[in-house]
Amino acid sequence: MRDQYNEELDSMRTSLLLMAGLVKDSISKGTLALLTCDLSLAEQVIAEDNVIDTIQHDLDARGLNLMARQQPVASDLRTLVTGFRMSADLERMGALANHIAKLARMRFPGCAVPAELIPTIEEMGRTAVLIIDKMASVIEHRDIVRALEIETDDDQMDILHRKIISTLLADDWAHGIETAIDMTLLARYYERCADHAVSIARRVYFLVTGEYASPKA
Amino acid sequence: MRDQYNEELDSMRTSLLLMAGLVKDSISKGTLALLTCDLSLAEQVIAEDNVIDTIQHDLDARGLNLMARQQPVASDLRTLVTGFRMSADLERMGALANHIAKLARMRFPGCAVPAELIPTIEEMGRTAVLIIDKMASVIEHRDIVRALEIETDDDQMDILHRKIISTLLADDWAHGIETAIDMTLLARYYERCADHAVSIARRVYFLVTGEYASPKA
Repeated sequence: MRDQYNEELDSMRTSLLLMAGLVKDSISKGTLALLTCDLSLAEQVIAEDNVIDTIQHDLDARGLNLMARQQPVASDLRTLVTGFRMSADLERMGALANHIAKLARMRFPGCAVPAELIPTIEEMGRTAVLIIDKMASVIEHRDIVRALEIETDDDQMDILHRKIISTLLADDWAHGIETAIDMTLLARYYERCADHAVSIARRVYFLVTGEYASPKA
Repeated sequence: MRDQYNEELDSMRTSLLLMAGLVKDSISKGTLALLTCDLSLAEQVIAEDNVIDTIQHDLDARGLNLMARQQPVASDLRTLVTGFRMSADLERMGALANHIAKLARMRFPGCAVPAELIPTIEEMGRTAVLIIDKMASVIEHRDIVRALEIETDDDQMDILHRKIISTLLADDWAHGIETAIDMTLLARYYERCADHAVSIARRVYFLVTGEYASPKA
């Protein structure tokens, strides 16, 4: 009975990791679609969002089922409830990757991102992928050292976010209001995606240590 | 034992309603602070966000405790897990109200919202309050008719959102990039807040009917 329980918990963790992998792919491909103005890649990311949602529904149903049958207490119960929350964070990250791809599609055959912002958006995409990789390792190995590292990586994302806003506000911004709106939202999508990864890392940190990772101001 | 269990479930619902009331106040006061450029009111909203977070932590701890002691199954288990999710939505709505108040504070002694957008932002605030009121009634009475109404109210919020973006993109927009960035984010805060209320309404709908309210495209 207990073995079966642990197997099911493991399989839920596998689903969380699967979601994390799909979110990483979506962010990575969505960023590429955006920066190379690639409509078919954007369409692919948009189509794949359903897959993430389906895994989440399935994961949540299995979690509820496991709870009802096994009546877990203490740390097992916490692990399950934390799993529900992590799946909600991952689902939202998938939705944000979807927004990135939708922006690429909306501006096609034009390119959404003006040339001078490409390096910064590229770096936001890379930082998001790095953070998601670490987050996956935090989920898989309950690695609290990496959980804390993600806080610092998120600071880097905030710096990139501010850099975008400064560029929009500079006197030589020449791309008008529509592109400024696009870039404002785009920068926010990456930043929020990182925020959700931070949430997941903090949840695992709490699960392992029983303490809250000191939240940033 | 069972009576005590029901009492505790009731008291968790009371906490959700308390959170909903505080979120409504924050949105309402945050909007007023923004539109009347009232720094002290903005500060008050910002200070109160902690209260919402504290209630959420307490509610989640009680929920976990109740689960561990009472080992609920079937619909009781679903109600509890749904409660966790609703508290997360409410916490996020509080954070969005906080963002609105922070924008008012950041632009003080200036006013964040240009005169011609005041009526639309005012209506977004009113629509948010209306939606939160209905959402509270959905939580309190499991009122699925109102749960479906919220979908329509959210369409109204989307219309207001698009109205803001159209104003920013019109040829006669005279307030520059910074205000356009502020208004882009502000409109998104109200829209996301309504989205979370929609999520809560859908969760209750599912709890009551066992079916998903047809999601919008």
